[in-house]
Amino acid sequence: MIPVNYPTGIKKKYQKEISHGNRGMALEDDINETNKYYLKYNIAVIHKKPTPITIKKVDYPSRIEAIIKEAYFKIPSTTDYNGIYKGKYIDFEAKETRHTYFPFANIHHHQIEHLKKIVQHGGIGFIIVRFSKLGETYYLGAKELFTFLENSKRKSIPREYFLNQGHLLKEKYSPRLDYLAIINKIYFEGE
Amino acid sequence: MIPVNYPTGIKKKYQKEISHGNRGMALEDDINETNKYYLKYNIAVIHKKPTPITIKKVDYPSRIEAIIKEAYFKIPSTTDYNGIYKGKYIDFEAKETRHTYFPFANIHHHQIEHLKKIVQHGGIGFIIVRFSKLGETYYLGAKELFTFLENSKRKSIPREYFLNQGHLLKEKYSPRLDYLAIINKIYFEGE
Repeated sequence: MIPVNYPTGIKKKYQKEISHGNRGMALEDDINETNKYYLKYNIAVIHKKPTPITIKKVDYPSRIEAIIKEAYFKIPSTTDYNGIYKGKYIDFEAKETRHTYFPFANIHHHQIEHLKKIVQHGGIGFIIVRFSKLGETYYLGAKELFTFLENSKRKSIPREYFLNQGHLLKEKYSPRLDYLAIINKIYFEGE
Repeated sequence: MIPVNYPTGIKKKYQKEISHGNRGMALEDDINETNKYYLKYNIAVIHKKPTPITIKKVDYPSRIEAIIKEAYFKIPSTTDYNGIYKGKYIDFEAKETRHTYFPFANIHHHQIEHLKKIVQHGGIGFIIVRFSKLGETYYLGAKELFTFLENSKRKSIPREYFLNQGHLLKEKYSPRLDYLAIINKIYFEGE
């Protein structure tokens, strides 16, 4: 439980979250809305995990009120999203980039290791990456992610790899980002 | 994302966590150690979710440092623990009580509803309850929990129900609280 100084990217994310509401949080917002849809229609139970923090100081101005006055962001040891769909364990991370490639700096080493364990134990692991300037969002299976990492010395994944090895996620009105449709195709087709 | 005043029990938990270290957090500590053991020996991937909070104010004393200066506890919409074991989705809540019965006030309505959905979707749901004065810790399956809730007007579950319908979890050196041994018996015996 060592407090950490948060990587700049994550820091920026929170600055945005606090000062500009949803701006810059579009992907997270789309996924949360999609998960709400899945929950409402009893399709799947998938939630975003709370942001991991270390609490240092809490004030109690009244008997029932608690205000956290000092806390620090921690580096997450797992991915942000997990849950259950058709009896299968689902686990993924979602990232947005303004580049036309996906820098590995955007994903923690811990999170890659976590996804590896999930796949080993029979879960469905993947990442969702949005190229915000291109207006494209992709599903990339954990196995395809590992294959790239094992076979390349690059520090980023080019968009073409997502195009060829991943699946384009088209944005719709409802659900906004139907990533379970991709999972249906890959894992449940023909059932 | 409405900030909430936290229920007194949870507030007390944090007061304890902050002012007395691990005292009063024994069950959580035992489960976390058990999960670390499962992870280390590649048995299962089960994590505690971070405490859900709403962040209101963050200071940036330097380019890389972020300090949360104002945040509030939120009522959790799910249980505290989830993960994967032998390909199955695992989901549970852990609670400690000083009573000789388990008051429902200790578990949020949302969490019960969440466990119901998990079971519907084919996951393994349960609660772990420690009667701290008796020195007894029980595993109670979600279905047995629902059966009690549907058939009783009581506002608590007597210890006898845990004794008869649940499974006593004996504390050991390592893993400290081997709840997967119970899951093996119930779900994987004879495989």
